[in-house]
Amino acid sequence: MVRKRSDKVLVVEIDANGTDVSQRRTPDELVVEEPMTIQLDGHVVATTMRTPGNDYELAVGFCHGDGLLGGVPVTGVRYCANGSAMASEFNVVTVETMGRAPVPTPRLGTTSSSCGSCGTENIEELVHRVATLPADRLANIDPAVVVGIPSRVLGDQTLFTSTGAVHAAAVFDADGLVSMIREDVGRHNAVDKVVGALLLEKRLPAHEFGLFVSGRASFEMVQKAWAAGFGTVVSVSAPTSLAVRTAHRAGITLYGFARDRRMVRYAPN
Amino acid sequence: MVRKRSDKVLVVEIDANGTDVSQRRTPDELVVEEPMTIQLDGHVVATTMRTPGNDYELAVGFCHGDGLLGGVPVTGVRYCANGSAMASEFNVVTVETMGRAPVPTPRLGTTSSSCGSCGTENIEELVHRVATLPADRLANIDPAVVVGIPSRVLGDQTLFTSTGAVHAAAVFDADGLVSMIREDVGRHNAVDKVVGALLLEKRLPAHEFGLFVSGRASFEMVQKAWAAGFGTVVSVSAPTSLAVRTAHRAGITLYGFARDRRMVRYAPN
Repeated sequence: MVRKRSDKVLVVEIDANGTDVSQRRTPDELVVEEPMTIQLDGHVVATTMRTPGNDYELAVGFCHGDGLLGGVPVTGVRYCANGSAMASEFNVVTVETMGRAPVPTPRLGTTSSSCGSCGTENIEELVHRVATLPADRLANIDPAVVVGIPSRVLGDQTLFTSTGAVHAAAVFDADGLVSMIREDVGRHNAVDKVVGALLLEKRLPAHEFGLFVSGRASFEMVQKAWAAGFGTVVSVSAPTSLAVRTAHRAGITLYGFARDRRMVRYAPN
Repeated sequence: MVRKRSDKVLVVEIDANGTDVSQRRTPDELVVEEPMTIQLDGHVVATTMRTPGNDYELAVGFCHGDGLLGGVPVTGVRYCANGSAMASEFNVVTVETMGRAPVPTPRLGTTSSSCGSCGTENIEELVHRVATLPADRLANIDPAVVVGIPSRVLGDQTLFTSTGAVHAAAVFDADGLVSMIREDVGRHNAVDKVVGALLLEKRLPAHEFGLFVSGRASFEMVQKAWAAGFGTVVSVSAPTSLAVRTAHRAGITLYGFARDRRMVRYAPN
């Protein structure tokens, strides 16, 4: 079933005087946002607000990026269908490992024995939770190739062009070939879809590839890139301080503000 | 203690040929992103990646917007300090109601009895979980006032000006007076900080005020506005389809693409 990824609504355009400019309601295209619950071997691990489409990739990529798979293969992915209404059925996806993945531990909603964490603890915890690659296995893609990626991806962002409200993640190689683009209302979902697709195509670890992300590079983006084995990450906006520290620790080459054929290198430096 | 909200790093600027333009490393200012764990009467309810500052407001606003307080007053807010390192102490905030708030139920990590939800179920569930106001109590602010808000907020976004990587939420009244601005690396956190501040100042429900959000208007933004009682929400970018449906259901006047002294009304229509 193909789910709608955008939806038309009638809107009113208003000018500086508060006056209705359009005189009548005009159609506008909005990106669809719906909750999707992700299960791993029957355990609910997350509910995310996402744009429908590539749901299996999203579920698999989320589990991988969060270190939930524990290195075991995914044996199946399916929509949950135990008697619910049609609308619900396609908003729950179950990732299966035949029970071989570790039982996910609830990380919210229970009192934690440790009392929170600072950013540094977060980074070191990732090394254990996520199967990270050593930095010397990560390919370093020529900056002259990387700088040309954003304009190439932008041309193919079909949903962004129509709604102006989605993020994209893309995979590119050392020759500048963009082999995959995924769009979603959530930037983290777009990255999960890319990672999930690579996993299902048995192309992980992605150490020969670069990851493009629209918008900013937060800690979460670099975490997911690290878990997937990307050696290069390029974003069109600013990174956060923790994202830069994580990239340094991971050995990832991190570029930001990649637009108008210029960019800034944040790591290594 | 005043925590750093931005951090300077050395970067390398690169041009279209992949060449280092700056010839040497130049300083750049990044927004700080650190995890903060929120507890309610000793129960961990969430960990969010946030920019330090206004942490008490963030914790209180999150609990309010998620419907966790159950209408009981907040009796105290404090940093958690049971023997952890200095860095950790300031990344855990406990909201206290003397045990009068309902015990938060884990919403992740356990098998859910219902099988997911579609957007419509999400909206109706909110009506019960969050103490929403009837639509006739929500003030409708003159569009000529609303259209002038974004440029006013932008002038006061100090952290955005220096880092280019934060979101803002702001409160304005029917005269166009902007009485509060909060900035954060996460848009939802910025809104939580605004709502938490209003709650701590005993200014909720906010039915006489409008809420400004930078970036897009997602379902989550409208949910938080609804829970806080805002009658008008204005964002500088696109809303999602679910955000528009939620605004219709809530009786909230929702504007998007508010820039260059024009905007689009998405609800009511």
